Amino acid sequence: MTCDVAVAGGGLVGLSVAWHAARRGLSVTVVDDAPGSGASRAAAGMLAPVSEAGYGEEALLRLCLASLERYPAFLDALAAATGVRVPLRTAGTLVVGFDDDDVRALADLQRFHGELGLEVHRLPGREARRREPGLSPRVRGALHVAGDLSVDPRELHPALLAAAEAAGVRVVRARAAGLLRDGGRACGLALDGGGEVRAGAVVLALGAHSGHLPGAPALPVRPVKGQILRLRGAAGLLDGTVRALVRGRSVYLVPQGEDGLVVGATVEERGFDAAVTAGGVHDLLHDAIDVVPGVSELELTETLARWRPGTPDNAPLLGPSGVPGLVLATGHHRNGVLLTPLTGELLAELLVAGERPGLAAPFGVERFGCS
Amino acid sequence: MTCDVAVAGGGLVGLSVAWHAARRGLSVTVVDDAPGSGASRAAAGMLAPVSEAGYGEEALLRLCLASLERYPAFLDALAAATGVRVPLRTAGTLVVGFDDDDVRALADLQRFHGELGLEVHRLPGREARRREPGLSPRVRGALHVAGDLSVDPRELHPALLAAAEAAGVRVVRARAAGLLRDGGRACGLALDGGGEVRAGAVVLALGAHSGHLPGAPALPVRPVKGQILRLRGAAGLLDGTVRALVRGRSVYLVPQGEDGLVVGATVEERGFDAAVTAGGVHDLLHDAIDVVPGVSELELTETLARWRPGTPDNAPLLGPSGVPGLVLATGHHRNGVLLTPLTGELLAELLVAGERPGLAAPFGVERFGCS
Repeated sequence: MTCDVAVAGGGLVGLSVAWHAARRGLSVTVVDDAPGSGASRAAAGMLAPVSEAGYGEEALLRLCLASLERYPAFLDALAAATGVRVPLRTAGTLVVGFDDDDVRALADLQRFHGELGLEVHRLPGREARRREPGLSPRVRGALHVAGDLSVDPRELHPALLAAAEAAGVRVVRARAAGLLRDGGRACGLALDGGGEVRAGAVVLALGAHSGHLPGAPALPVRPVKGQILRLRGAAGLLDGTVRALVRGRSVYLVPQGEDGLVVGATVEERGFDAAVTAGGVHDLLHDAIDVVPGVSELELTETLARWRPGTPDNAPLLGPSGVPGLVLATGHHRNGVLLTPLTGELLAELLVAGERPGLAAPFGVERFGCS
Repeated sequence: MTCDVAVAGGGLVGLSVAWHAARRGLSVTVVDDAPGSGASRAAAGMLAPVSEAGYGEEALLRLCLASLERYPAFLDALAAATGVRVPLRTAGTLVVGFDDDDVRALADLQRFHGELGLEVHRLPGREARRREPGLSPRVRGALHVAGDLSVDPRELHPALLAAAEAAGVRVVRARAAGLLRDGGRACGLALDGGGEVRAGAVVLALGAHSGHLPGAPALPVRPVKGQILRLRGAAGLLDGTVRALVRGRSVYLVPQGEDGLVVGATVEERGFDAAVTAGGVHDLLHDAIDVVPGVSELELTETLARWRPGTPDNAPLLGPSGVPGLVLATGHHRNGVLLTPLTGELLAELLVAGERPGLAAPFGVERFGCS
């Protein structure tokens, strides 16, 4: 098999790159033995550049805001391509605090948002509960971030897969076993169990597994474990996303569909350990029930652990690698769902035009001294 | 199909009755669409007459002690019949207390045990931790009950099913849809989806569903919901069963197999609601981690809810019903696994000899004014 582009990884990022590239006229093959079974399976789907913004991560914030801006058109294009409308939940996000320290942390966060020119409103506890009556009376204060939205990754992934296939992307259900090289140049992927896909360029979009594809350069990408819970029976409990600091620990509650709720997520450095643990589930339930007591009555339908692709500065790796013909679309850490539209657009531009677009410039692997 | 005895329900109790009756020479048919999928699926398998003993339940205690006495021979007979040895965990049980109120409750319990002549030893916290080093340093005191053992119901049920079939019991995989009557007398079971099993006598062993078999008299049996957790990675964490009062709430931790642990159980009056809830799982994890902090690191492999067959006085219904030919083996509430051997023995005796054995005498349905 020969094509213009071989994409290793059929998660949200890999498919978005593939779809965008195919729409730009390239022939694309995606290699994945189980598309959609990785990080997107556990993601809550927060599109939350503002409430995720971290000190010293302003370049990442700009990237995230630019991707959020593209979301409505991205979902429109998906709907046009597939007939399936993936809904965007536009009720916004409340970031709530519990004790004095939590409320002080919120005030600091709001100051930081102000410096960045982001629109955030401070609400006293009473006002926060007027907006979300499910909140505990113990919530002391909140920030309202109208612009932080959400989408269900379990609806988004199949829609993106269907759109990619409709645009001519071939999906090979096999594990990418290694990078093929011809001289110094990447020229395709070897498949687990034999066979290969030869290509003019290769995109590495293997999420947490991106750091160690045989034949590819080692990358500073590590698995950051996250455990999440899915619950049922939450119709009417929350309008939008609620994020909370509970005695210094973070938890979020994201409504999904008619009556679903996702509660997440632990952040654990444990390598590729996929175990759902008693302690992880306990902490999530404990904090979620503290913030929204009605969670206690919901049905717990699923517990799950997956790995975010973490990098040393929490920002993605976008663009050329040290190997000609191999480009990177990985390291999205906590922002994979959010960065899906823009990553596809930027990488397709790079593949077609041969030059890294300006928005991707701060996110080269060379910033880590790797090449 | 005609036989001597039709048993409605292929759980532990129904199968034990069937197996004992078949060994006494009766032809037996068991009717169950999914044997082993009921309460035994969620049971932790504690054989714990002493630590379960409740005030005012002395007759039940004697029944439970008599059944525990039979367990070794019962498992020997099962092993002889099937070649499968279901292990009896003989490390005993620690009942531990956390705060002052918990420790006072333990002292009361020990006094009660003393009045009944039961062998129980009081241990200070330090001694309890010497016996079970996994216990939290916050455990203030404990009772050691050497005689309270455990068995894995998920090993016991298939062994009992195999033994029953080897003894000639026929198992019909259908739901019992109603009691057949001939004049006033029970004469078999109608099957869901058509067909029937005609029999000289019918045993009602439908667990929590025993109260409302069409054609049978209404019985004071109600579903008492219990949620449990199964965990993995517990090798070496606990030697025997640990039961705890944590600020007045009960939790138990029962080691199973090489590295399993069962944590249970909620006690909820919610009718036939099978939902695993956020609140139920939270409370079990919270209390279990309080008592044995190492639980936090274990893998949570399963959450499950089932229904105990509860009666007004927590004791079973054994023996004749108001309908000639219909006998009862139900209402075992929290003691189903423990009472499995003796229930089979007593009911087989009743079916063969036509008279209720003395041990079963206190457990007639007539004590509730039903007939």
